[in-house]
Amino acid sequence: MLQTGLMMDRPLMLSDVIEHAALQFGDVEVVSRETHGPLFRYTYADCAVRARKLANALAGLGLEPGSAVGSIAWNNHRHLEAYYAVSGSGMVMHTCNPRLHPQQLIYIINHAEDQVVLFDATFAPLVKGIAAHCPKVRAWVCLAEAEHTPAIEGVDNVLAYETVIEPCSDVFEWPSFDERTAAALCYTSGTTGHPKGALYTHRSIVLNALSGCLPGVLALGPDQSLLPVVPMFHINAWCLPYAAPMSGTKLVLPGPKLDGQSLYELMEAEGVTISAGVPTIWQALLAHVDQNGLKFTTMRRTGVGGSAMPQALIARFMEDYNVDVRHGWGMTETTAVATISALPPEASGWTPPECHALLAKQGKSLFGVELKIVDESGATLPRDGRAQGELMVRGHWIVSAYFKGEKSPLVDGWFPTGDIATISADGIMQIRDRTKDVIKTGGEWISSIDLESAAVAHPAVAMAAVIGVKHPKWDERPLLFIVRKPGQSLEKDEILAFLTERVAKWWVPDDVVFLESLPVGGTGKVQKADLRKNYGGVFS
Amino acid sequence: MLQTGLMMDRPLMLSDVIEHAALQFGDVEVVSRETHGPLFRYTYADCAVRARKLANALAGLGLEPGSAVGSIAWNNHRHLEAYYAVSGSGMVMHTCNPRLHPQQLIYIINHAEDQVVLFDATFAPLVKGIAAHCPKVRAWVCLAEAEHTPAIEGVDNVLAYETVIEPCSDVFEWPSFDERTAAALCYTSGTTGHPKGALYTHRSIVLNALSGCLPGVLALGPDQSLLPVVPMFHINAWCLPYAAPMSGTKLVLPGPKLDGQSLYELMEAEGVTISAGVPTIWQALLAHVDQNGLKFTTMRRTGVGGSAMPQALIARFMEDYNVDVRHGWGMTETTAVATISALPPEASGWTPPECHALLAKQGKSLFGVELKIVDESGATLPRDGRAQGELMVRGHWIVSAYFKGEKSPLVDGWFPTGDIATISADGIMQIRDRTKDVIKTGGEWISSIDLESAAVAHPAVAMAAVIGVKHPKWDERPLLFIVRKPGQSLEKDEILAFLTERVAKWWVPDDVVFLESLPVGGTGKVQKADLRKNYGGVFS
Repeated sequence: MLQTGLMMDRPLMLSDVIEHAALQFGDVEVVSRETHGPLFRYTYADCAVRARKLANALAGLGLEPGSAVGSIAWNNHRHLEAYYAVSGSGMVMHTCNPRLHPQQLIYIINHAEDQVVLFDATFAPLVKGIAAHCPKVRAWVCLAEAEHTPAIEGVDNVLAYETVIEPCSDVFEWPSFDERTAAALCYTSGTTGHPKGALYTHRSIVLNALSGCLPGVLALGPDQSLLPVVPMFHINAWCLPYAAPMSGTKLVLPGPKLDGQSLYELMEAEGVTISAGVPTIWQALLAHVDQNGLKFTTMRRTGVGGSAMPQALIARFMEDYNVDVRHGWGMTETTAVATISALPPEASGWTPPECHALLAKQGKSLFGVELKIVDESGATLPRDGRAQGELMVRGHWIVSAYFKGEKSPLVDGWFPTGDIATISADGIMQIRDRTKDVIKTGGEWISSIDLESAAVAHPAVAMAAVIGVKHPKWDERPLLFIVRKPGQSLEKDEILAFLTERVAKWWVPDDVVFLESLPVGGTGKVQKADLRKNYGGVFS
Repeated sequence: MLQTGLMMDRPLMLSDVIEHAALQFGDVEVVSRETHGPLFRYTYADCAVRARKLANALAGLGLEPGSAVGSIAWNNHRHLEAYYAVSGSGMVMHTCNPRLHPQQLIYIINHAEDQVVLFDATFAPLVKGIAAHCPKVRAWVCLAEAEHTPAIEGVDNVLAYETVIEPCSDVFEWPSFDERTAAALCYTSGTTGHPKGALYTHRSIVLNALSGCLPGVLALGPDQSLLPVVPMFHINAWCLPYAAPMSGTKLVLPGPKLDGQSLYELMEAEGVTISAGVPTIWQALLAHVDQNGLKFTTMRRTGVGGSAMPQALIARFMEDYNVDVRHGWGMTETTAVATISALPPEASGWTPPECHALLAKQGKSLFGVELKIVDESGATLPRDGRAQGELMVRGHWIVSAYFKGEKSPLVDGWFPTGDIATISADGIMQIRDRTKDVIKTGGEWISSIDLESAAVAHPAVAMAAVIGVKHPKWDERPLLFIVRKPGQSLEKDEILAFLTERVAKWWVPDDVVFLESLPVGGTGKVQKADLRKNYGGVFS
């Protein structure tokens, strides 16, 4: 009969994260861009004090453990305080992506039953449009002082954050409860049907955040300064607002100013050593750095995920800017990072392109996450780097069900990701495509991701996307979309010749469409559904 | 009402650690010194295969979940396999300190109800002496091939490890169970009364091991090579045999050869970058390096704990050998590391002695561990770096009770450590003494540790110890014991004059006793009880 061990049985609690930071790293700075412009700075000790005041304020507004609080906000210090006050009180922090369609925002606020919604003044027009349709919201709290809180026509329950917390005590006894209690809620930006909610627990977030601090992931600690560009409304900014105070890392929050110049200046001014974000956000930053002949003087590494990082972009970071790329994979359903790419010790003898090629893969699963790939019958495929199948994942920070979902998405206890991947014998996973994006031609699969990566390696290409188009003989054939870089010329024959040298002959797209821009959705991903709607006819 | 989150509910299991390593870091090496001399090397994938064979073998010997398996063994690969096979099967891995008195060994083996005891051939004489008194042990398994397994007179149930596992299948379905299940058992080497057992859980070990991988602790990862000198019979070698495979770190196990030359040569041959052990083990290593004019070519940092690391030794590591010292604090009851010392970013402007002084403190608590100091009435004392009180600790990897203990050692949910400490406003804890070692004089306290540290800073002093001796006027007064370095002369007046310049006048010991050696116990700590017995009279 199993013996029960004799260790203290204490829950993993998010309130312990901020109180740990206040006690051990009380003078470590948090720097935050106010929505109205200036920089604000304080410490983790200050942050904990204000989180406790907000916890008292939320209780004063009549909220209780289990209540949901929404946010439509940038990465800033008040949003950070809310992360801890809300979850620490046993409530659910529901971060809303402001780039969602207003109808979707209304849907998720009502579905989550948000009783208070925190918002930045930037989004006042959005609030104006949706407030009347969200009858359960008692108060819309602007993350600002009274003087920077706009009146919103037709919305009479707008409060200023500073006015709300000012009279409250900074003494608050954080409750202790089951670590499997819901702490945060994030909806996928599903392109079909209603958004679906991932309901994170205190346990899953603590374990994910702790893993994010590891040397092979972002290597956080008191000697580092972290700027998460990944939004706090996007999977809790990959749990970095938890990992930073847990590890005593200085936190730099860029607020609404995400243009290349603003990010660069903030990084330099605050000695930022680590950043993190989706691949698309780096384009503007690198363009600014290039055009002005600048260098990163303190940045050492950047976490990248959300969609595949093209090898060409990895090469630029590492060779031109001397910034290490930590390329990972995760999704809303995996509470941020699940796999991370890293060079093995023997890479010291490799050429730069060999290193970049390995880092362009999604890498190995972290301890606590297991991967497998399966064929269409659900049978496990070999880990040989060649067999492609749907990626299945399970672990401590993977969803078991969607919030108020009707049926579990799990298959035999594994979450089906919808990604097509390979796994090598040494555990390196590579995403080849989305199940819905893969192009089936003549009984074989073409990876749209690989084709896109090959195309963006051309010096005149700014962006590329590939979709499958019905074909009478081959079932589907690839159609390539190209956005040229400003001032560059590039024609169909030239890009197809370029690709012919780089991919299998039968992968070369049947046609190329040049566009001024590509449709990009709320999380920075190209919306292929839109391309399919407009261009998905039939090749003849 | 609290909402339950929707994440997979999977237990933290030690079997997942070795299987994670086998899948993600299958070709990372484990190098192990055989008890009979030669080096053995294989990979984490091999280790997992053999752990599964051993799990089948233990089941074949009639053991069941909940059974206890003892070990009296060095740091080697078979001991590592046993860690995973035993705990992964839901059994309890009971590591025995071979330096305990045979009567204590008999006591703990019977108290733990070990059904099998694994031992290294070195300890065959020990087994011969205790086996008859351990009637519940079905088999004494020597961690060797048959040819290196000695016959032990009077013990007929001796088996060879390789013979035991050889016929077994390498397929074993690790059971999944509550993460609060006992995984390992380690007894304190209590100087009074019977040893007391700390019964670690899968959860506590996984959380501790994960924290040990963090950049601010040992910074483990696939680019590192770790040699734990701290024995696997001493608090699971501070959980490093779990942290290494979890993080893909190469593991170098020194077996019985712990002399300075053997350790140095192994470190150089295997590219060891990180080591860990109690302060006393470094003396022989540094002596060898000094005497032969050597350097560490790959070692970058070493974890130190178990007893306070003298500042002078920290200085030698950092200045003479360019090895970073990660000085921490923990005890059997805290599943290894609980606090760790680290230089803050502003230390870049400090002098070396300022850095060493900070690193000589025990540092900040890791996330998951909380500290406080209390006075004799149990009232919490201020975190001001001056107030001294008993250190109390609580957290995810702290004992709640002793194995088969009659009453809980906890006070209001906190474990009283028996250490006297200060905590500064920025969270830095410093051990000042053991409650039983503190010297009370004229209503004030003298720290025996501080006095000892001051004394060993004298170039002629090899070891120093201080005890309190009854005094008619002052209650107690300090008595200093000195072991001179070989060939050095040092007299009482000289060392007292040296101390007078370094400590408060009323701290200067009343007398000095020069000895050839100090009594050192099973875990390398000076046994002050012995000194008190022989020298603890009354000052007149």
